[in-house]
Amino acid sequence: MEFASDNTGPVHPKVMEALSRANEGYAPGYGDDAIMAEVRTGLRDLFEAPDAAVHLVATGTAANSLLLATMANPWDTVFCSDMAHIHEDECNAPEFFMGGTKLTLVPTTAARMTPDALRATIAAEGSRGVHGPQRGPVSITQATEKGTVHSLEELRALTDVAHEFGLKTHLDGARFANACVRLGCTPAEMTWKSGIDAVSFGGTKNGLMGVEAAIMFAPDDGASWEFELRRKRGAHLFSKHRYLSAQMQAYLADDLWHEMATAANAASDRLLAGLRAHPDVAVLHDPACNLIFASFPRVAHKRLHDAGAHYYVWDGDVDAGDPDERLTGRFVCDWSKDHAEIDRFLEVLAG
Amino acid sequence: MEFASDNTGPVHPKVMEALSRANEGYAPGYGDDAIMAEVRTGLRDLFEAPDAAVHLVATGTAANSLLLATMANPWDTVFCSDMAHIHEDECNAPEFFMGGTKLTLVPTTAARMTPDALRATIAAEGSRGVHGPQRGPVSITQATEKGTVHSLEELRALTDVAHEFGLKTHLDGARFANACVRLGCTPAEMTWKSGIDAVSFGGTKNGLMGVEAAIMFAPDDGASWEFELRRKRGAHLFSKHRYLSAQMQAYLADDLWHEMATAANAASDRLLAGLRAHPDVAVLHDPACNLIFASFPRVAHKRLHDAGAHYYVWDGDVDAGDPDERLTGRFVCDWSKDHAEIDRFLEVLAG
Amino acid sequence: MEFASDNTGPVHPKVMEALSRANEGYAPGYGDDAIMAEVRTGLRDLFEAPDAAVHLVATGTAANSLLLATMANPWDTVFCSDMAHIHEDECNAPEFFMGGTKLTLVPTTAARMTPDALRATIAAEGSRGVHGPQRGPVSITQATEKGTVHSLEELRALTDVAHEFGLKTHLDGARFANACVRLGCTPAEMTWKSGIDAVSFGGTKNGLMGVEAAIMFAPDDGASWEFELRRKRGAHLFSKHRYLSAQMQAYLADDLWHEMATAANAASDRLLAGLRAHPDVAVLHDPACNLIFASFPRVAHKRLHDAGAHYYVWDGDVDAGDPDERLTGRFVCDWSKDHAEIDRFLEVLAG
Amino acid sequence: MEFASDNTGPVHPKVMEALSRANEGYAPGYGDDAIMAEVRTGLRDLFEAPDAAVHLVATGTAANSLLLATMANPWDTVFCSDMAHIHEDECNAPEFFMGGTKLTLVPTTAARMTPDALRATIAAEGSRGVHGPQRGPVSITQATEKGTVHSLEELRALTDVAHEFGLKTHLDGARFANACVRLGCTPAEMTWKSGIDAVSFGGTKNGLMGVEAAIMFAPDDGASWEFELRRKRGAHLFSKHRYLSAQMQAYLADDLWHEMATAANAASDRLLAGLRAHPDVAVLHDPACNLIFASFPRVAHKRLHDAGAHYYVWDGDVDAGDPDERLTGRFVCDWSKDHAEIDRFLEVLAG
Repeated sequence: MEFASDNTGPVHPKVMEALSRANEGYAPGYGDDAIMAEVRTGLRDLFEAPDAAVHLVATGTAANSLLLATMANPWDTVFCSDMAHIHEDECNAPEFFMGGTKLTLVPTTAARMTPDALRATIAAEGSRGVHGPQRGPVSITQATEKGTVHSLEELRALTDVAHEFGLKTHLDGARFANACVRLGCTPAEMTWKSGIDAVSFGGTKNGLMGVEAAIMFAPDDGASWEFELRRKRGAHLFSKHRYLSAQMQAYLADDLWHEMATAANAASDRLLAGLRAHPDVAVLHDPACNLIFASFPRVAHKRLHDAGAHYYVWDGDVDAGDPDERLTGRFVCDWSKDHAEIDRFLEVLAG
Repeated sequence: MEFASDNTGPVHPKVMEALSRANEGYAPGYGDDAIMAEVRTGLRDLFEAPDAAVHLVATGTAANSLLLATMANPWDTVFCSDMAHIHEDECNAPEFFMGGTKLTLVPTTAARMTPDALRATIAAEGSRGVHGPQRGPVSITQATEKGTVHSLEELRALTDVAHEFGLKTHLDGARFANACVRLGCTPAEMTWKSGIDAVSFGGTKNGLMGVEAAIMFAPDDGASWEFELRRKRGAHLFSKHRYLSAQMQAYLADDLWHEMATAANAASDRLLAGLRAHPDVAVLHDPACNLIFASFPRVAHKRLHDAGAHYYVWDGDVDAGDPDERLTGRFVCDWSKDHAEIDRFLEVLAG
Repeated sequence: MEFASDNTGPVHPKVMEALSRANEGYAPGYGDDAIMAEVRTGLRDLFEAPDAAVHLVATGTAANSLLLATMANPWDTVFCSDMAHIHEDECNAPEFFMGGTKLTLVPTTAARMTPDALRATIAAEGSRGVHGPQRGPVSITQATEKGTVHSLEELRALTDVAHEFGLKTHLDGARFANACVRLGCTPAEMTWKSGIDAVSFGGTKNGLMGVEAAIMFAPDDGASWEFELRRKRGAHLFSKHRYLSAQMQAYLADDLWHEMATAANAASDRLLAGLRAHPDVAVLHDPACNLIFASFPRVAHKRLHDAGAHYYVWDGDVDAGDPDERLTGRFVCDWSKDHAEIDRFLEVLAG
Repeated sequence: MEFASDNTGPVHPKVMEALSRANEGYAPGYGDDAIMAEVRTGLRDLFEAPDAAVHLVATGTAANSLLLATMANPWDTVFCSDMAHIHEDECNAPEFFMGGTKLTLVPTTAARMTPDALRATIAAEGSRGVHGPQRGPVSITQATEKGTVHSLEELRALTDVAHEFGLKTHLDGARFANACVRLGCTPAEMTWKSGIDAVSFGGTKNGLMGVEAAIMFAPDDGASWEFELRRKRGAHLFSKHRYLSAQMQAYLADDLWHEMATAANAASDRLLAGLRAHPDVAVLHDPACNLIFASFPRVAHKRLHDAGAHYYVWDGDVDAGDPDERLTGRFVCDWSKDHAEIDRFLEVLAG
């Protein structure tokens, strides 16, 4: 009963097959492989963005950090949610790649920035002339770190605020596919058609081994080359690049990305329905992708842990303390999640 | 007829099999996978270094940069050969990860620093008190960027010089296995028994998809944890780490690393013998691993290129110019190199 | 009628005389001048800290940034008030010098962190293992950016929290003297006797031309030399260092620092009494040094500005808008402030 | 008998007077003082460059590092002489401010790069695509670190090479005035009329307390503001800026910069003539400003040191060793050097 992360699950068999196919014969290194040419076209088609700059890296933190470094100056501040992965979970990687740029935190509701909060935060920064940090890009996470999803209208409202101030926008799409499936929209609609200038299009959490596409929809002159130099300087240019390309190739073929996210969301929906049906469980936020936060008494957590369930509890010790005290668990379903496992989890939870 | 790089060849089937095996079920992310525990032990055993700090990254530049950053201060200078990969081919990644540390170039003979040149270079630096850069670690490449190999005595002589000055030593082992096989020594003999404090133990050029082990033999207190923080901050900690571990697992099993390097060296030896037998060919340096530099007339290069041979020529245009002008080619054989392909190459060369 | 800043006033004549005296003959550069030896002893005596590491720089931002860089790792986060000068007014200099370290903002009351807020903020950070930033030093400003002063008990309570978590403490003392005079305590009492590990002992805002002392009370092995290397690498080591030393020499002689701060505080008290006596004026925070924030109707601001008064108003346009709307001004008195000028200001304010 | 450095001498009395005059009343901080407006115009007039961006900093290392950071990317390499101050004597400050940019050393004759050596060095770099550092600006020192001076033709030949490759040029003018006086040319002729894009116009070594002007002759859009942000972020923006302005004001008035450099050069010429007249003395390089390197037997050094002469000897111990062994001393004369002191030095040397 594994619900710890979408990083703990296996890679989709079609991805493994693509890797095997890619492993025949010789191929130029460093991104000049033929598969990458195909992937570049495939991503531009998927995003309906024929002029987009498209590069692959192996980690989400690399995609976020390199894109933001290409968009921000070292004396700027990036506006992001107070729960943003780039703030909480990347050990200062964005600050490192950007050269000391600051992150300014925007208050959130269910991990979503509101346009008013964003506007107020931007307005309060950047007014000190040379003394304070300058206003830099706005980074939005979709789906959010709490499992919620911005509607297209919400995204547009946020990017409108950014553009009012002349600021660029970045989308951290580590769970891009899950959100896109939920909204029933196209990748283009969830990005540049909603005012997004650059996206980290995640694959790793959604069934790949380790690939993210960093996409800039209308790169400034030189920005694509700058990204390449930053990627190399960050030690993120793979010599045997074909094995990154092959993963993305499989991801795009027959919309595997969509299929896997659909499966993950469906599993999560099943779990969510079960959790909501339980009288002792309170579901937090408003989960709309494959990430659920829910609180219930320690005694139930203990029962689940004893039965071998894996998931994170950050606000207390499951094994020691008042049995009635409520603790919050995070429950993640990936593309491979067996529904029977979910049902078993819910049975154990029911006691 | 592919001789462009050891990065253009395929991954060994046993590595692909290990990846498939690793792809079953759930596994903790971020280096906490069970395979990594096995790999850590395996590498400590291989290097006869039970207290070594062992971490995996996906690129050689990451291994070099992160190790050097852990060993050097931003106000130091690293001593390395004037042909070092960290100087010529990493787009300032070491400087970036170290925070602006300088590299001081040591003159070389056939890409090997001599102890005298190293001593003189170190002596000339670091004598300006607070004004100049401070003396930092010494980085040695084995095998070198020109295909030569330091003997154990040569390595020891260089590390002795470093230690005389109280400096630490790093070995860039992108082609570690090829050198080790050539010397017929153990990994321990080629590292800590020769005075090496840290090694980038390469796998990518030698049949893996993209894995290098960064090993510190006697890490200072806190250095292993510092490496982990630097790796995460550099966006080089893989969430689905098991797929790095699995590659290294296969590399260690039945000494696959040794087997592949033996094959690559044998192929290169065959090519070398053929080149040397040709009256118009001058072999440069003193090739001792899977990397050969050789010069011969343009007309022969053109014949080879027209026949589909791939390799690098940096000092002129193969297709245009005096047919008798000599140009230098670089010829690399990887583990998978078919001897028949070498023979065909030599036939075309012979004209 | 100048109340814009303590940076807009003149240098004390005794400081100018010291500069002239220092300008005789030859003196070794780069901090090896005889005056610096005297100043080092003088500062150690003043702070009752015979083992303190003592260095001079020319700007407060340099003192703060270099001390924090010596105390924090690039993967750490520094805890500071949400109004801290290092956060709001140094254009990412701390982040630059520290190599991308984050600042975590602690909520304040009248610009003072409370021990509870500090504890909660520290507790919430640093619990994500390698994924999040690590806990770094705590930086406290005394006097604060809003003119308030922590009591010795308040300082001790904050440093106790820091030390509970094993964290070091830094005091941004740009207005150290003003606070010290107000508390009627010794410099030692306001620093290491209250648990402060390092202080930026400001001179520039208090009558010097441009000198701050960076003092570490119990430096770790090598920390003093590290500071020197960081200072040089930051381009903050003055070749003609004697002119920094001479300013600090004058500052210490006959407790000029104390005399100037006493004068500045007295002027500010006079202004404060006048402001408080005015029925339309609301004094903000709880001013205890030479910095007052007060709000009153636009019409009065306009009258003052038309009469030539200089001070900052950040929340609106003095010249345009509803005459009754209240705007907040910041009023700073330096050591040289003429009481007659204050009285005139109050007369114009009274209308 | 002080010949250690032009940093050990006093500040010119006219500069001290200007500081005193500047010390009256209130003045806006951070570069908005009225004297700076005057100085900006004065420098633009002096350099015949009405559109130049002009900023003041307190150290030469800051001027060099901030200008180079504004001109170079972190993935570039700066071309400079192998004896350049930015390479040897700034403790990695340029690398720090540039974010890890490399310096590529160009071989020199008497500390002067030759156009051929520069061209060959540039040609050899930047040809590795994304793998190697990219070509960045060329930095030239005038007068050089060895006391030699480039003729205008030599400067032009070097900047022509840079511009052939599309690279910008920087002049480290720590001893700008000494060279300019020697060449009998105008500041414009020695800079933009010779193809220089930016200059660190030194004052500190030539009689000021600590001021250098950083001047960009035809700044790119936004480059002047970028410099200001970098200066603030580097902690080099002075709050009481008027005291930097006042020094430069005095420097420009009645061409004091020219007068002081003339005096320093004259003193150095007198010393040079005396050294050349001595049969045991070998003068190195081809001194053309206030910096002389000369070798003579230890016994003479010892005699001078015993008589109280101060100067640097880096290649041996003056007090111990073979009396006949030749050691090299560096002898610097500043604007204030008394000719009688020189004559006394020469007498002691004569023995």
